[in-house]
Amino acid sequence: MPGSKVMKALVYHGPGKKAWEEKPKPVIKDPTDAVVKILKTTICGTDLHILKGDVPAVTDGRIIGHEGVGIIEEVGKGVTNFKKGDHVLISCITSCGKCEYCKKQMYSQCENGGWILGHLIDGTQAEYVRIPHADNSLYPIPKGADEEALVMLSDILPTGLECGVLNGKVKPGDTIAIVGAGPIGLAALLTAQFFTPSEIIMIDLDDNRLKVAKTFGATHTINSEKENPVEKVMSLTNGKGVDVAMEAVGLPVTFELCQKIVAIGGHIPNIGVHGKSVDLFLEKLWFRNITITTRLVDTVTTPMLLKTVQSGKIDPRKLITHRFKLDQIMEAYDTFENAGKKKTLKVIMTNENE
Amino acid sequence: MPGSKVMKALVYHGPGKKAWEEKPKPVIKDPTDAVVKILKTTICGTDLHILKGDVPAVTDGRIIGHEGVGIIEEVGKGVTNFKKGDHVLISCITSCGKCEYCKKQMYSQCENGGWILGHLIDGTQAEYVRIPHADNSLYPIPKGADEEALVMLSDILPTGLECGVLNGKVKPGDTIAIVGAGPIGLAALLTAQFFTPSEIIMIDLDDNRLKVAKTFGATHTINSEKENPVEKVMSLTNGKGVDVAMEAVGLPVTFELCQKIVAIGGHIPNIGVHGKSVDLFLEKLWFRNITITTRLVDTVTTPMLLKTVQSGKIDPRKLITHRFKLDQIMEAYDTFENAGKKKTLKVIMTNENE
Amino acid sequence: MPGSKVMKALVYHGPGKKAWEEKPKPVIKDPTDAVVKILKTTICGTDLHILKGDVPAVTDGRIIGHEGVGIIEEVGKGVTNFKKGDHVLISCITSCGKCEYCKKQMYSQCENGGWILGHLIDGTQAEYVRIPHADNSLYPIPKGADEEALVMLSDILPTGLECGVLNGKVKPGDTIAIVGAGPIGLAALLTAQFFTPSEIIMIDLDDNRLKVAKTFGATHTINSEKENPVEKVMSLTNGKGVDVAMEAVGLPVTFELCQKIVAIGGHIPNIGVHGKSVDLFLEKLWFRNITITTRLVDTVTTPMLLKTVQSGKIDPRKLITHRFKLDQIMEAYDTFENAGKKKTLKVIMTNENE
Amino acid sequence: MPGSKVMKALVYHGPGKKAWEEKPKPVIKDPTDAVVKILKTTICGTDLHILKGDVPAVTDGRIIGHEGVGIIEEVGKGVTNFKKGDHVLISCITSCGKCEYCKKQMYSQCENGGWILGHLIDGTQAEYVRIPHADNSLYPIPKGADEEALVMLSDILPTGLECGVLNGKVKPGDTIAIVGAGPIGLAALLTAQFFTPSEIIMIDLDDNRLKVAKTFGATHTINSEKENPVEKVMSLTNGKGVDVAMEAVGLPVTFELCQKIVAIGGHIPNIGVHGKSVDLFLEKLWFRNITITTRLVDTVTTPMLLKTVQSGKIDPRKLITHRFKLDQIMEAYDTFENAGKKKTLKVIMTNENE
Repeated sequence: MPGSKVMKALVYHGPGKKAWEEKPKPVIKDPTDAVVKILKTTICGTDLHILKGDVPAVTDGRIIGHEGVGIIEEVGKGVTNFKKGDHVLISCITSCGKCEYCKKQMYSQCENGGWILGHLIDGTQAEYVRIPHADNSLYPIPKGADEEALVMLSDILPTGLECGVLNGKVKPGDTIAIVGAGPIGLAALLTAQFFTPSEIIMIDLDDNRLKVAKTFGATHTINSEKENPVEKVMSLTNGKGVDVAMEAVGLPVTFELCQKIVAIGGHIPNIGVHGKSVDLFLEKLWFRNITITTRLVDTVTTPMLLKTVQSGKIDPRKLITHRFKLDQIMEAYDTFENAGKKKTLKVIMTNENE
Repeated sequence: MPGSKVMKALVYHGPGKKAWEEKPKPVIKDPTDAVVKILKTTICGTDLHILKGDVPAVTDGRIIGHEGVGIIEEVGKGVTNFKKGDHVLISCITSCGKCEYCKKQMYSQCENGGWILGHLIDGTQAEYVRIPHADNSLYPIPKGADEEALVMLSDILPTGLECGVLNGKVKPGDTIAIVGAGPIGLAALLTAQFFTPSEIIMIDLDDNRLKVAKTFGATHTINSEKENPVEKVMSLTNGKGVDVAMEAVGLPVTFELCQKIVAIGGHIPNIGVHGKSVDLFLEKLWFRNITITTRLVDTVTTPMLLKTVQSGKIDPRKLITHRFKLDQIMEAYDTFENAGKKKTLKVIMTNENE
Repeated sequence: MPGSKVMKALVYHGPGKKAWEEKPKPVIKDPTDAVVKILKTTICGTDLHILKGDVPAVTDGRIIGHEGVGIIEEVGKGVTNFKKGDHVLISCITSCGKCEYCKKQMYSQCENGGWILGHLIDGTQAEYVRIPHADNSLYPIPKGADEEALVMLSDILPTGLECGVLNGKVKPGDTIAIVGAGPIGLAALLTAQFFTPSEIIMIDLDDNRLKVAKTFGATHTINSEKENPVEKVMSLTNGKGVDVAMEAVGLPVTFELCQKIVAIGGHIPNIGVHGKSVDLFLEKLWFRNITITTRLVDTVTTPMLLKTVQSGKIDPRKLITHRFKLDQIMEAYDTFENAGKKKTLKVIMTNENE
Repeated sequence: MPGSKVMKALVYHGPGKKAWEEKPKPVIKDPTDAVVKILKTTICGTDLHILKGDVPAVTDGRIIGHEGVGIIEEVGKGVTNFKKGDHVLISCITSCGKCEYCKKQMYSQCENGGWILGHLIDGTQAEYVRIPHADNSLYPIPKGADEEALVMLSDILPTGLECGVLNGKVKPGDTIAIVGAGPIGLAALLTAQFFTPSEIIMIDLDDNRLKVAKTFGATHTINSEKENPVEKVMSLTNGKGVDVAMEAVGLPVTFELCQKIVAIGGHIPNIGVHGKSVDLFLEKLWFRNITITTRLVDTVTTPMLLKTVQSGKIDPRKLITHRFKLDQIMEAYDTFENAGKKKTLKVIMTNENE
């Protein structure tokens, strides 16, 4: 309802409670803001954590969600890259473009932004969203682009690419392992192939996800409940281990696995969100020329990802398993929460209201 | 005694036992070997660990030591870079130049070498030493060079530079901290200045070493027994922490300190030798864009270090506090073992026998 | 005259004509603008080219100058990093922070800025200047900083550093040559020392500048009118040539000299402004693993340079040879135009009006 | 004839003269030598230059050729990586592994090797060849590998990859142009895809080669005789030019074309062999942040290429258009010399003698 002052949104009401309810339609607050009408959005594993109450900074009444594509509804006077009617990709990271960190392209650490959507300010699981610092936080969608595919560029693909693939310095000919075949691990799998590794070993507990991984380009899969993953990796690599061992789960046991399978001179890029400290086996690693990295996605690769999608070098639609209308979002959540049973990877919710 | 078939050497005889005793003078075994007459050698902290029995690969009868300069006494038929009479720097790392790792300049992991001197084969605390793969494991000493200074290039300076400074990606204007002001930490301090950091904070328990650090270029020192090092670093850095936090001790507590003082986007290059696993605070670091590295020195920077010493850009003599004749080596060990009391950094033993 | 609507400025009136005359005081035009009261400014070689008529984009009536420090007089509503009264460094490059190039840190190519000050818009040789995109184009001056020294950070030091030293990949132990010992070449000489090259060979025709270069850290100097520079460089480098040959003049003959003295595997970073094409000796260079770079300064290193000046790692004041009041600017120009006779490097003009 | 002391070889007898004639079978001269029985070899464009007399260092009586795979016939006492009977890939670059350049992985500039095969010493277009420094100049062929495909790894693929793709810093999403669709340009095309550029524009005068380029992955082709290549590239790139413009011909006109089509911030990696100097348009490029590189292939990527071939990530067989027995080599030369008419890319000659 373009003329209306209200809209529908997915609102957090404390641990375990969410509702698809009416909220005021957002308005321009700062001259660098844009208000975007959501066309398509999705659900992230982080949203489930928020709903459980694991992210205390998210308070009662917050609209969640940090991914999506939309149409510019209105821009503040300071916005110059966009105008009403432009189709845009919303980045999960808001960046002001002028703080110390933004000037170093570390947008995740922006002093005036970072990950705030659906966290510290209202997010994208709604009919409309206000995007601060719009010139640096939105990306123009080229004509004719597949907007459903581009929803995967809000968070999941740059996360896999930046935290996993680029930090892991994947090179042609490399043997790599990705521990965790959830959406993020699969995004790492897709984007790792930008750099043509020879072997990609996918490790998970879910046979369906491993099967999917094979169709996405994994050369080997290991169900770590059924096989000893360390022994299997060593046998696949002549006892050397892998050049890159990506952690895409966020648990001590999986981070420790990465340490056990990484080759001399190798990389352990962490992608997972961790809630506990882990054991670092320095007594074994101190002399093995290992690099461990952590990173919150900076979304600095979004322009590059847009080009690779446009030219057909990567097909992010593969990650989408279920589609809903935006007002079926409660059902979409159910499907995403029961990912194992329903074989869910990513869900898309489309706003069909005019 | 050039014509003699025996020589004197420092020999390990099991935990706590060492002797300066007669041993057969080494001979060429492989065509790529050289036999080098030691001119000057030194003692490393690792040698003390060996003598305590901490390095089980070192067995009774082994001549220890992996640092020194000398004169070529004889070369095998396959050696082409050196000839009898050449003055040479002995690298602590032996590299064959033709295995997978050497071809990647990761000499520390050489399949036919690596750190073997005074460890798996007889070492340099002797009148003569056999150096395998001499063409790749020795470096020519330019005429007129200060050979005493160059002994510091066998191990300690490339270790500080490669494991600490290069892995830490020290840049002009950086604020860095070095945890540990022993010889290795001080070597990192000297070589860090190749890249002109703005502030260098040295952290140790020993006031004398901190005082030395100041004369070597540290801009701030913290005695972590007398002050809270985390609070002090944060107050010196406006609460941001340091761009690079080097671990130059090898204990859990010091590695953990590095994690507490590193800034967003910062580096933790490990230099220390660790005997235990440590806690990695991933719950705090996963989103802070941190890089942690480990490395055994590859001595790939030795040619560069030779140039910087030759041109007076660095003065490694500063690290030498005590000088002995080679046959006073037992006294030298005493001085090195009682470093705190005797204010010892590095000792030099000179072979004055003709 | 703070309340006044007019000010004095150095105005271009066509080839060979300039005047220190009254102009309207600049005002905020866009919300991202700042108006800065100039405290200190200087003259660049480029300004002389402009005055000769060599830069056709500069039209009659333009206030020239693109360097300086000042005090914020007024900011637009969109400016958040600065407020009235702040002391600021003015970058010669204006960057919007939100175009394709700014997002890649290539501010020189900013679609809404780049080098525009004293070129496409009025510049800094005036009592006041309007700075567009102030948040990204000005830098805060730390309390107690030497503001005269910081004027050198507007253009000359980042130019030497970025175009010469960083593009040339100067490393510890390198032997480098800088062709041209004018202010830019000397700025390259000062900043090259951030990376501790072993030998720095300075080549020029002016003995005074070569003498100055020696006091700035050059290890060798060559007057290319009195000696054959190719022969001399080869004799200094055992016939190998230099690792980095910087071109800091802007003539075919000096660029060709760089090609003749660069070593196998070496770098030729161009700093000079060129008006003609040059011969590239590909028949000699195609197999020598050479890298040639061009660059307009991006001033991306300004924050790093501020830190190195603050910590005393570099002293840009060395470049300042003459000082004037701002309203003595015609005399300052005379001094700068007769640099050879008057031994001028950089001149400083100070605005002493309240 | 294994027991025989003679063999057949392709011998250069001055400009325009070559013969397939009897020569002494090579023997071990130095302990680091291997003698290799050729299984498969090929002809390079450089061989045609040699035969015309363009490479004066090649003298009457020289066996030419620098590519091939074979079986080790005999090794010197110093060879440890190989033994009689091993199947090996012969690198076009001989490297000693222990000179200054080899230690920097710049094997092309090896003081004891470099490109010497079929140039300064006898080459591979023969039944047997002596390979100096065998441990560093040969590569083991994995069991079951396609040896015909691997002949492309002696020279052409590492040349395209190192001189063109790696020096050009091809990145995912890039738009690149390759000027010259001969075997080297096509090798660059194949290996560029390791890094997933979005658009690859191939420019040549030969429609057949352009047609082949399309089947190899080029997204656009330009026949520069029929279309204005500068206009066409600009229209394909919205007037921006290409991120990487590779020169794979070796003529002034093609190098100049690269300068005209490269985008701001772009790379011009030279692959071609040049006999003349070219015009460098510094008056247009000095402010455009361009990088130009030259390089003789170092073959440092051979191990990586072996892995990508083994894992099926690249299929170098595509480059092979004609096959002959080794003793049909005169016919093979005819086919290669008349490449336009016969649509030749690379020819393979197989030694079928026992």
